[in-house]
Amino acid sequence: MTENVTLQLDELDLQILDLLIKDCRTPYLEIARICHVSGGTIHVRMKKMEDLGIIKGSRILLDLGKLGYDVCCFVGIYVDKASSFTNVFEEMKKIDEVVELHLTTGDYSMFAKVISKNIHDLQNVLLEKINNIHGIQRTYTFVSLSQPIDRNITL
Amino acid sequence: MTENVTLQLDELDLQILDLLIKDCRTPYLEIARICHVSGGTIHVRMKKMEDLGIIKGSRILLDLGKLGYDVCCFVGIYVDKASSFTNVFEEMKKIDEVVELHLTTGDYSMFAKVISKNIHDLQNVLLEKINNIHGIQRTYTFVSLSQPIDRNITL
Amino acid sequence: MTENVTLQLDELDLQILDLLIKDCRTPYLEIARICHVSGGTIHVRMKKMEDLGIIKGSRILLDLGKLGYDVCCFVGIYVDKASSFTNVFEEMKKIDEVVELHLTTGDYSMFAKVISKNIHDLQNVLLEKINNIHGIQRTYTFVSLSQPIDRNITL
Amino acid sequence: MTENVTLQLDELDLQILDLLIKDCRTPYLEIARICHVSGGTIHVRMKKMEDLGIIKGSRILLDLGKLGYDVCCFVGIYVDKASSFTNVFEEMKKIDEVVELHLTTGDYSMFAKVISKNIHDLQNVLLEKINNIHGIQRTYTFVSLSQPIDRNITL
Amino acid sequence: MTENVTLQLDELDLQILDLLIKDCRTPYLEIARICHVSGGTIHVRMKKMEDLGIIKGSRILLDLGKLGYDVCCFVGIYVDKASSFTNVFEEMKKIDEVVELHLTTGDYSMFAKVISKNIHDLQNVLLEKINNIHGIQRTYTFVSLSQPIDRNITL
Amino acid sequence: MTENVTLQLDELDLQILDLLIKDCRTPYLEIARICHVSGGTIHVRMKKMEDLGIIKGSRILLDLGKLGYDVCCFVGIYVDKASSFTNVFEEMKKIDEVVELHLTTGDYSMFAKVISKNIHDLQNVLLEKINNIHGIQRTYTFVSLSQPIDRNITL
Amino acid sequence: MTENVTLQLDELDLQILDLLIKDCRTPYLEIARICHVSGGTIHVRMKKMEDLGIIKGSRILLDLGKLGYDVCCFVGIYVDKASSFTNVFEEMKKIDEVVELHLTTGDYSMFAKVISKNIHDLQNVLLEKINNIHGIQRTYTFVSLSQPIDRNITL
Amino acid sequence: MTENVTLQLDELDLQILDLLIKDCRTPYLEIARICHVSGGTIHVRMKKMEDLGIIKGSRILLDLGKLGYDVCCFVGIYVDKASSFTNVFEEMKKIDEVVELHLTTGDYSMFAKVISKNIHDLQNVLLEKINNIHGIQRTYTFVSLSQPIDRNITL
Repeated sequence: MTENVTLQLDELDLQILDLLIKDCRTPYLEIARICHVSGGTIHVRMKKMEDLGIIKGSRILLDLGKLGYDVCCFVGIYVDKASSFTNVFEEMKKIDEVVELHLTTGDYSMFAKVISKNIHDLQNVLLEKINNIHGIQRTYTFVSLSQPIDRNITL
Repeated sequence: MTENVTLQLDELDLQILDLLIKDCRTPYLEIARICHVSGGTIHVRMKKMEDLGIIKGSRILLDLGKLGYDVCCFVGIYVDKASSFTNVFEEMKKIDEVVELHLTTGDYSMFAKVISKNIHDLQNVLLEKINNIHGIQRTYTFVSLSQPIDRNITL
Repeated sequence: MTENVTLQLDELDLQILDLLIKDCRTPYLEIARICHVSGGTIHVRMKKMEDLGIIKGSRILLDLGKLGYDVCCFVGIYVDKASSFTNVFEEMKKIDEVVELHLTTGDYSMFAKVISKNIHDLQNVLLEKINNIHGIQRTYTFVSLSQPIDRNITL
Repeated sequence: MTENVTLQLDELDLQILDLLIKDCRTPYLEIARICHVSGGTIHVRMKKMEDLGIIKGSRILLDLGKLGYDVCCFVGIYVDKASSFTNVFEEMKKIDEVVELHLTTGDYSMFAKVISKNIHDLQNVLLEKINNIHGIQRTYTFVSLSQPIDRNITL
Repeated sequence: MTENVTLQLDELDLQILDLLIKDCRTPYLEIARICHVSGGTIHVRMKKMEDLGIIKGSRILLDLGKLGYDVCCFVGIYVDKASSFTNVFEEMKKIDEVVELHLTTGDYSMFAKVISKNIHDLQNVLLEKINNIHGIQRTYTFVSLSQPIDRNITL
Repeated sequence: MTENVTLQLDELDLQILDLLIKDCRTPYLEIARICHVSGGTIHVRMKKMEDLGIIKGSRILLDLGKLGYDVCCFVGIYVDKASSFTNVFEEMKKIDEVVELHLTTGDYSMFAKVISKNIHDLQNVLLEKINNIHGIQRTYTFVSLSQPIDRNITL
Repeated sequence: MTENVTLQLDELDLQILDLLIKDCRTPYLEIARICHVSGGTIHVRMKKMEDLGIIKGSRILLDLGKLGYDVCCFVGIYVDKASSFTNVFEEMKKIDEVVELHLTTGDYSMFAKVISKNIHDLQNVLLEKINNIHGIQRTYTFVSLSQPIDRNITL
Repeated sequence: MTENVTLQLDELDLQILDLLIKDCRTPYLEIARICHVSGGTIHVRMKKMEDLGIIKGSRILLDLGKLGYDVCCFVGIYVDKASSFTNVFEEMKKIDEVVELHLTTGDYSMFAKVISKNIHDLQNVLLEKINNIHGIQRTYTFVSLSQPIDRNITL
């Protein structure tokens, strides 16, 4: 289980995190100026939070539609038996269009988020890639028509 | 509809995007060095891709478990009638724990991703916040037990 | 109830129907030649079958993808109460993208086939048009990924 | 993926298509008269649209009830595993009563439209034909009680 | 609650019941002969079992298909709220095609068995009669394709 | 398919059927008196309707609760594959508690009506008998809490 | 949120809990003997664990079947809207047959465990009591046929 | 079937049961005082009710949250075939977190109540323990968010 390390954070750490949650490309000097501390202090704190494993990296936000990826969908996956889980993981990892994979309670064994260019591309991902994985019994797909909220948690 | 602008991108643009997809905090000079162009060129290309709306910003990746957020779940939302959609949007936006919201085909009117600290916190979000929104008829929640894949699309 | 009129058809009628089922633009003279009868006989038989109401007209077969219509989907519709049926019919008829509408046993009150250009167009049809019809409580949509069979019944 | 060729169509092409969508047996000379062009022009345009693959043929519209076919139903098909898809296709094609077959997102692997004469005929199609296909695990059938809309898309 | 009165029955009573379960038109004298008792005894025992309320009457068995009733189906009924139950009962009783009505655990509030002549007749019963009853929210119908077992319980 | 023979029935036949539907133990002489015909005529007509196969016999109506049978339930049966149907039929016939068996469209392959004495008896029927039949994959049971309508169709 | 107080427990506390989990009527002197401490020590530890709120009391285990309660079932409850929750709670509390009530993720708003004497008693609880509560839209009941495991958690 | 033995109980027995249902640690002398009988009488009656099998023992009530068990959930279990039932029982018994197991009518073959410390612990129980049992095809889990009612039946 992941250990909660928030007790090792002080107000300055949380203020830095808050700024980075808003825009993770904010330069350290800008962070330092806002927090009224030196740039060196920011470096020290960033290092601490990276060492604690709180900050795992960063991710660019792209307008996928402008890059030709028009279809975002969710795929519920029924795995035939527990011993197939490892293989299904490994095979799903090889499919670039799969951007999230969850093991879930509820109706499905696994639940994936899939990005594709259009319905024909989706057909290819579903029928040629995902449904051909050994151990996947059945999938249930629903398509995101629009996504009005997409953000990080506020601490 | 979002216009596909990939025809306006050349190899260098895609190479820059590729580096930023891997780590969006990579300094421009490092990108320039890898691409064998000047830092100024990177700035010009970044500006172009931001103007085209391809790059919308960046997001820090946090280990939510280490920050005390242990429960990630998906909430299918049945809205009572179409005229309630706008209100449900507005109210969902006010709930910090809601990090994604999709309008979907399939069983639910909307589909949300919710982050909470533990089961008691989740109870609060579901019963006190989401289910109290006017226009929400019923919700269906399933919990992510673990998430072995979480990444950007590969171009 | 529709009266079965097949007892009023002879072998020649059925042969003509069979040719038209295969290609309804076959000229009458060609049909006459194949059936070893005169063109006038074909006209008489066609008139009889039109008068009996067997032949209701004809329909051109288009490659919808080439015309920019990429998404074919099925929409199960839950109507809130029986007295809303007439209104839902009238409103559904006004939506050009709805090409079939059935009243069905099973899970849904009605079941529609909808053609749209892409996911964004589908979003518009579902959220702005169909879900705004008074009397529609909820819809369930599933997308056709490909359609390997599309033909008339063989008599 | 099917290429959208609408950019290669002009107003006259669309006017011709529109007339044929309304009644595909309209004679070319009648179309020419309405469009104020020569019959030869219509032939040229028809040839172009057939060459582009937009016009795939035509289909006669029959009153199936008058021909003794009283039952139209939809059959959701659960295929046991992806490698069975090809066989299921081939076998479904051999069943005359199957007039449409779709691969779909959502609950079912495949979704068919089936025409039969009556409940006893339907029993035969479902139990003796469809459910005997190797690779079909389970079917879910719902019956169309009436079909108030049946038409082509309006361009 | 119905009182179990089987303790008040002896072997002769059960033998008589058994014969009547097999064919309830068996004449009393025939029953008497088989049971080696007088016809008067049979009359006394029949009266006792009728007075105890065990025997409620008899029902003729018809071949409904030969009488033109081709469709037997089951209708799950969702009632909108408990206070509508009485009204739904009263209205269902007025519909001749409803031959059984159950209150059930499980998915539906009520569950009916409906006999109709054909799909068009079924459409009329479902859409014009049952779905117009005030308090019925939604129905779910499935059709019996054939019924290989139809018999009384064996004591 | 069962042939509809109602065209061979006249008003007297239907009047006789109507009386027998109300109480199938009505003596022939009583029927004759009501219909203003001789007893012999009734015999002739009964013979005709039995020969046509319209009248298949009769069934005694019992108060099952008074005989100690308190639980009536419906069992949806999922059969694993079509080739198991015959075996499942044969085995279901051997279980006395199964009083009806239907092949159905909709969710289940088969649908049975089961009478048992109490929950413990039902457990025995479901777990020891039905679920042990080779070819039955899964069952879904719902219990009838009360049955306010139980009658024949009215002609 | 409930505070985890296990850090305040030592081996002796856990040994006492373990004995009481096995049989909560074990006399303190017997517990003291097994743990090799004085009876007074047991009293002190029990008081501590009661003060911490770990031990909330005890419950007698009855054979409900021998007391005439033959039916144990689970009832999924759909509440119409969040503002009805408080009323539904209060009303459910007044029904003696309801021995557990949970608010749950998943299909139902609430989930209850209900004990009743027989099917007729269950009918009364479901139809006359639970379904008459204002705010309950629909219930889904499934019956426990037998319960092979019923125990406390092992620490 | 369990024999109902309530006819062998008198008012005093029921009064004793009633006191023990409220608090099963009530000393016999206290019970005797309240019932206006001697302690010996209570012992005799307790022995009788234990011999009849009415009283099976007692169970301590713990605040599981204070002991670090934050997650209570229900797990519907689909068993692949009837012959697997015995093995699934035996394996489920070995899992300490399973505190109840029921065989049920309705959607699932079995239905379990599971207690775990947190979501990570639940993941372990579900994925490593329950889903690895041979004969379990699929599970469906829903989490209890809170439990406002938890009590014994009132006699």
